[in-house]
Amino acid sequence: MKVALAQINPTVGDFSANLARIVDAAERAATMHAELVLFPELAICGYPPADLLEKMAFLDRAQEGVAELARWTAVAGRPAILCGSVERANVPEGKRARNMAVLLDGGEQVFLQAKRLLPFYDVFDEQRYFEPAAEQTLTVWRGRQLAVTICEDAWNDKLFWPERRYAIDPVDELMRGWPEGAGPRLILNISASPYWKGKRGVREEMLGALARRHGATVAMVNQVGGNDSLIFDGSSLVVSPDGVVRARGLSFTEDLVVFETEQESLREPDERVAGAARDERDEIAATWDALVLGTRDYLRKCGFRTALVGLSGGIDSALVAAIAVEALGAENVTGIGMPSEYSSSGSIEDARALADNLKIRFELVAIREIFEQEMAALEPMFRGTAFGLAEENLQARIRGSLLMALSNKTGAIVLTTGNKSEMSTGYCTLYGDMVGGLAVIADVWKTRVYALCAYANRECEVIPRSTMEKPPSAELRPGQKDTDSLPPYEVLDPILEAYVERYESAAEIAEAQGLELDVVESVLKLVERSEYKRQQAALVLKVTEKSFGLGRRFPIAVKVQV
Amino acid sequence: MKVALAQINPTVGDFSANLARIVDAAERAATMHAELVLFPELAICGYPPADLLEKMAFLDRAQEGVAELARWTAVAGRPAILCGSVERANVPEGKRARNMAVLLDGGEQVFLQAKRLLPFYDVFDEQRYFEPAAEQTLTVWRGRQLAVTICEDAWNDKLFWPERRYAIDPVDELMRGWPEGAGPRLILNISASPYWKGKRGVREEMLGALARRHGATVAMVNQVGGNDSLIFDGSSLVVSPDGVVRARGLSFTEDLVVFETEQESLREPDERVAGAARDERDEIAATWDALVLGTRDYLRKCGFRTALVGLSGGIDSALVAAIAVEALGAENVTGIGMPSEYSSSGSIEDARALADNLKIRFELVAIREIFEQEMAALEPMFRGTAFGLAEENLQARIRGSLLMALSNKTGAIVLTTGNKSEMSTGYCTLYGDMVGGLAVIADVWKTRVYALCAYANRECEVIPRSTMEKPPSAELRPGQKDTDSLPPYEVLDPILEAYVERYESAAEIAEAQGLELDVVESVLKLVERSEYKRQQAALVLKVTEKSFGLGRRFPIAVKVQV
Repeated sequence: MKVALAQINPTVGDFSANLARIVDAAERAATMHAELVLFPELAICGYPPADLLEKMAFLDRAQEGVAELARWTAVAGRPAILCGSVERANVPEGKRARNMAVLLDGGEQVFLQAKRLLPFYDVFDEQRYFEPAAEQTLTVWRGRQLAVTICEDAWNDKLFWPERRYAIDPVDELMRGWPEGAGPRLILNISASPYWKGKRGVREEMLGALARRHGATVAMVNQVGGNDSLIFDGSSLVVSPDGVVRARGLSFTEDLVVFETEQESLREPDERVAGAARDERDEIAATWDALVLGTRDYLRKCGFRTALVGLSGGIDSALVAAIAVEALGAENVTGIGMPSEYSSSGSIEDARALADNLKIRFELVAIREIFEQEMAALEPMFRGTAFGLAEENLQARIRGSLLMALSNKTGAIVLTTGNKSEMSTGYCTLYGDMVGGLAVIADVWKTRVYALCAYANRECEVIPRSTMEKPPSAELRPGQKDTDSLPPYEVLDPILEAYVERYESAAEIAEAQGLELDVVESVLKLVERSEYKRQQAALVLKVTEKSFGLGRRFPIAVKVQV
Repeated sequence: MKVALAQINPTVGDFSANLARIVDAAERAATMHAELVLFPELAICGYPPADLLEKMAFLDRAQEGVAELARWTAVAGRPAILCGSVERANVPEGKRARNMAVLLDGGEQVFLQAKRLLPFYDVFDEQRYFEPAAEQTLTVWRGRQLAVTICEDAWNDKLFWPERRYAIDPVDELMRGWPEGAGPRLILNISASPYWKGKRGVREEMLGALARRHGATVAMVNQVGGNDSLIFDGSSLVVSPDGVVRARGLSFTEDLVVFETEQESLREPDERVAGAARDERDEIAATWDALVLGTRDYLRKCGFRTALVGLSGGIDSALVAAIAVEALGAENVTGIGMPSEYSSSGSIEDARALADNLKIRFELVAIREIFEQEMAALEPMFRGTAFGLAEENLQARIRGSLLMALSNKTGAIVLTTGNKSEMSTGYCTLYGDMVGGLAVIADVWKTRVYALCAYANRECEVIPRSTMEKPPSAELRPGQKDTDSLPPYEVLDPILEAYVERYESAAEIAEAQGLELDVVESVLKLVERSEYKRQQAALVLKVTEKSFGLGRRFPIAVKVQV
């Protein structure tokens, strides 16, 4: 039997467009003689719908979508559809919705399985919305037993995970207890599994282990596309019972993978992601692709066509501009240079060279006179005080207000250029360089910003060498360097990564990294003191396992022992 | 037996200070001959600790705190303590922490009950962190059966709630099945139950129903104080088996309520909150008290002493300044007037009159020249375009940058002055009037802003009459009125309340409120279009059942059918 995995890119709440995408993919699968087409988790409404699930009209619209799709399958010769959607739970107690997989065939809903394991950690809030399935049932369809699971349901194999989040293993419940050879041969998993660094490798190992353990083919279809902070990579998988990956969907783009359940793959794995062991070079390319897709989709789904990037001549804004150009096209990106008296002459030249390389429009707006005017207005209150943080931030905020004025005037979105090291330490100005609709690289450590710039320059020099080689500086006072306030990034980033992503304590970090405790503590205190800035930050594209935003919920008015 | 309810105001993560507060209250209870003192849910670490619970060192520090408190009870003559804390769950699968009540007596931990019902809706994320209790157990202590519950555990009585969130009722499990007269006579509930409009009345009815149903005295101790967005009101309660409230803790301040389990209350209910049926007037006073406490605690717990408020002469900033003065003292509040060429002369006079009435410092910083300088800088790009949104927002953003410059220079926090009607419709400028560390009245509808101002003026005119009587205007272009862009607030607010707080659809609202569908739809579209602004807003003090912030999680890049 031929089965198709249709990794589509839905927009949350855009039911008609999502249904059109589903039907389009199903029609293409039909031309390839697929009998069954799988679509991702919540494909009809898009994942994650968040509190839209608390609106009954939203659940009802999804239910209508299921009925429309069922009608589509009524025409003879069309494939059956296994698709993710939501429905009202209709239970006297508990949550109002269910996250479910529906099997539609011959005009009817022939099987339904609700999700059993509802993730509620990091960015996932599913227990906020969904009643879990009481149990897992096999379905026999066209003479075959199908083990249907939804995303997390397949992520709790006790032989694979050293620590488990749930006591239940739905896959094991479906697959165990059969006499040799009589059990289901096909485990289907419909997912909305967001990308982060290293996750594609984990998925392959995990599904490989599952396939081997249960002696079944595992087919996983994953959503693709950016929805707010989350970037779904697709990378759908077919793993044969020996644990070998037989087919892969493309990463970061829609794709349709058709496989024969009784044969080897009909399709060669995509070249760039081939091989189970992905190296660091692959992950840099994947992060780049993720950021491009996340940027493109956020703008498209919000209705923006064009973007503005403040270009300082530094490496962060250069990277964001390069990503924006790949996402939107050079004609849709404008760079704005906003020099002050503390900007080095090289900075303007570097910004202009970048704009030339990227073939984007570049405008200069000087802020010196505005700054002087604001200082004059503040003079009665600032009199007798030294130049300091207020004056530094004021320059950044003037730049922010100019970018926003241009955004309001032209309808272009401002892309924020701060990196994760800055966001962690608060080395950034709220309402200044933090303004914008999307923080493109705020989940990328500074040391990885360099690697991504090198990747951007892989074919020719896009980001000027002088931008990559000069010491990082905010250029908000004469001769300023980042290292005046922070340890060098090669020292800083590993400390931050241990604290922000893995929640290690100061003592553990100092011990593991061979650093003085007070150096570590002074960095961690910066993280704690800047939580208020992060809570007002633009939406961050998530590319690591722990990014700022919804997946990391810390209070502000606290006393924290680092 | 005398039992004390110690409603304390902990700071999240400040273990030593919280323990000191607990010991201090326990010592006072001892002088009043209490044998047992109850402290709120998670009193040792403060509620809500959010993702701090994912740090093992945090759980261990709380466990040390329990041991310290146990040692305190070792001294003869001291009361026993029933206190909320967290500990490691130590289960092979599932969450790493438990939310628990510990009974400490004679130097030992003599009883432990984990929380069974873990709320996961609105602002509550408890299933993200905690393993639930497997079961509820009664304890017999000093010859008495105690039914110990934690907050939500008491909120699921099937006879009281028309819709229930959980199938289990822990109180019922503890209390049912006893022969007449042999069951527990005392239900203890340790809570961290945040204030919102109407909630104190619900608590009294709900606990009254529980007391009557089970024929037991119910004693509930509640946390008090502001922790970020949440304002805990205290209002601890003792309800006798006939459902009558026998004692109430004060609202919005620390308090110690001592009652005799075998007698009527030793203490008269606090006068201002007396009477189960609270009217609208009481709720206005309560909202005022909540905002004062929320403001005071946010500043104190963040380490701020002073605040800045931009005074436009309008009613919102006037209310925020009045709240700030009650919270911080007039000497710690500064009003900043920032007139532009579109400000009416009355606006400055009103702002100055307010500052005089409040006895706060008032400074004027004109923005006209700065605006002209920014417009000159933008002229090459703005040439030939009409005055519009960009120019309006620019003025607001200049004001924002000036306020932040003053904040950076003086160490005062900026208080944001937008109301809930503005936040709902996006009738506010991101990085402009939205700047600040705390959005004091962003959960207060404009129509209630007037009521709160009347309350502020209850003894003498603080907020000038002209401020209250003039038509609302952003004063960002000549002759501008809010009603140019929005329906009058008496029409707008009920629409918004139905949509934002109760998730009604446009059709339902039009029907219920007798409005044209297109009027309603145009308002709701404003709500949907401004989600991106709310996600970058300052922390909002929550005073209604559904406020903006963590309790309302909507995606941005979506298509929403209103």
